[in-house]
Amino acid sequence: MTIGETGEFGLISRIIARTVAGPACLLGPGDDAAVVAAPDGRVAASTDVLVEGRHFRRDWSTAVDVGRRAAAANLADIAAMGAVPTALLVALCAPPDLEVRWAEQLADGLNDECALVGASVVGGDISSSPTLTIAVTALGDLRGGEPVRRSGARPGDVVAVAGRLGWAAAGHTILSRGFRSPRKLVEAHRRPEPPYAAGPAGARLGATSMIDISDGLVADLGHLCEASGVAIELTRDACEVPPQMSDAAAALGVDPYDWVLAGGDDHALAATFPANADLTGEWRVIGRVRDGSGVTVDGKLYEGAGGWAHFR
Amino acid sequence: MTIGETGEFGLISRIIARTVAGPACLLGPGDDAAVVAAPDGRVAASTDVLVEGRHFRRDWSTAVDVGRRAAAANLADIAAMGAVPTALLVALCAPPDLEVRWAEQLADGLNDECALVGASVVGGDISSSPTLTIAVTALGDLRGGEPVRRSGARPGDVVAVAGRLGWAAAGHTILSRGFRSPRKLVEAHRRPEPPYAAGPAGARLGATSMIDISDGLVADLGHLCEASGVAIELTRDACEVPPQMSDAAAALGVDPYDWVLAGGDDHALAATFPANADLTGEWRVIGRVRDGSGVTVDGKLYEGAGGWAHFR
Repeated sequence: MTIGETGEFGLISRIIARTVAGPACLLGPGDDAAVVAAPDGRVAASTDVLVEGRHFRRDWSTAVDVGRRAAAANLADIAAMGAVPTALLVALCAPPDLEVRWAEQLADGLNDECALVGASVVGGDISSSPTLTIAVTALGDLRGGEPVRRSGARPGDVVAVAGRLGWAAAGHTILSRGFRSPRKLVEAHRRPEPPYAAGPAGARLGATSMIDISDGLVADLGHLCEASGVAIELTRDACEVPPQMSDAAAALGVDPYDWVLAGGDDHALAATFPANADLTGEWRVIGRVRDGSGVTVDGKLYEGAGGWAHFR
Repeated sequence: MTIGETGEFGLISRIIARTVAGPACLLGPGDDAAVVAAPDGRVAASTDVLVEGRHFRRDWSTAVDVGRRAAAANLADIAAMGAVPTALLVALCAPPDLEVRWAEQLADGLNDECALVGASVVGGDISSSPTLTIAVTALGDLRGGEPVRRSGARPGDVVAVAGRLGWAAAGHTILSRGFRSPRKLVEAHRRPEPPYAAGPAGARLGATSMIDISDGLVADLGHLCEASGVAIELTRDACEVPPQMSDAAAALGVDPYDWVLAGGDDHALAATFPANADLTGEWRVIGRVRDGSGVTVDGKLYEGAGGWAHFR
């Protein structure tokens, strides 16, 4: 059965039936607007859109995977402010011949990823469109803390990351060359595992700045440098290349550091901390903040594959 | 110049430069997430998407008009809960050959409509896509009141509307027949004027239920009946047909009540109130709530053009 056959309202009913309200959901889907708790009188809010062919392919990812990725991209943005995600709103644009089952599994993926952080889908919209598009807005709770911005890095701070670097990019390269393994890297592309808890934990550890790595480590640290008016020096060897990744890179004739330094889509977090911060948990130091501008790797400007720019 | 030439970040800078933060914007565009005030510890949130060819045509509407409509559709949903809109987040998907000027004017339209209610665009995302798509999420402040849901209508209540009925639909019919006037009706399609203030005012007047009319008066009151478990009896003559509309309908061989009863896109508000409510301002009574189910007009089930369903 296609969504053209169920119609807009039929599809909405089916999707709502699969959704379980999280603790912050005061009024869920089905009215003109949802109502979400914002206990400290503020709400963090971010929007990210996934377009078929650009951000995902239905022959590479299941609907559950696409849902998880759409949720992950947005939930990670909330975590990168030091906030705890509370709710998602989802606009689905889809061709009428889309299978209802695909839309339901997309909803399952969104719901499953939300459940990891105690959030839930509280509302949305559905429209027909020739291009399958999933626009998601995430809301979050700063729990009384100040938002951790991109602009607070200071010379002398250490640079640290939490989460995987380059795994999703490696998986993407593997799929684009027509392979399906190593499975762990392919799965990392299909279903990123952002270090959600590291966001609020980083804020508590005194992070002076933080950013979600969606365009690639060097590119996103470049945004952070620009916002903070500082330079960042990375040490390449501090960025781990796991054996599976170096094996795959060798087999494909690729420099694995192009994945690690320029690959987005893992939704790792990068942050700066005072030099004396006692980093625990997932945070690991990979560099230093200096006076100046731009990002260097082992003392040189990084000239690899570079970040991923839209429209170019 | 096209957005393919400026690239994602160039376009974002240009759009941010045109945006003025509203009073609820605690942290605006440019970071991983925005932060918006939610003074009473709750936030109302709603998402609505506009797809080219389905919801707008670039040869019928300017970019400013499309921006205003995209904002209006979302701000009206917030008003329909009895809340005051505070912020918008906007995901723009566009082909690389879109003129930068068009995107800038879209932003102007979004900003202008927001300014009517003291809200502002606080964040967004941009992606390339073959289909021009604008997904908007609106946030709002309930100011300590209970959200006015669709489910609270009780037998004996009066049914009232605020805002224009059928004007946008009339404008749409006029444009689709190749005409450009009467200008007032065409403008109503291009740029709806939702009665934003009537939402919170209706809540204060004791509205027992409320809904944004986006699918058409009868269709949306049908949703309200279903949610409340009641019937609604409308009086056709209580729904005004202005002279320009009846003239246009006669010229086009159309029943003007198809516009008034089935036309969406004006984003009027419909609400139910206790029979003794002292309705002021824009609210005007057009019917009654009864026991039963469904919507009747002058005692008969409405069998006109009907609401507008996606995918069918």
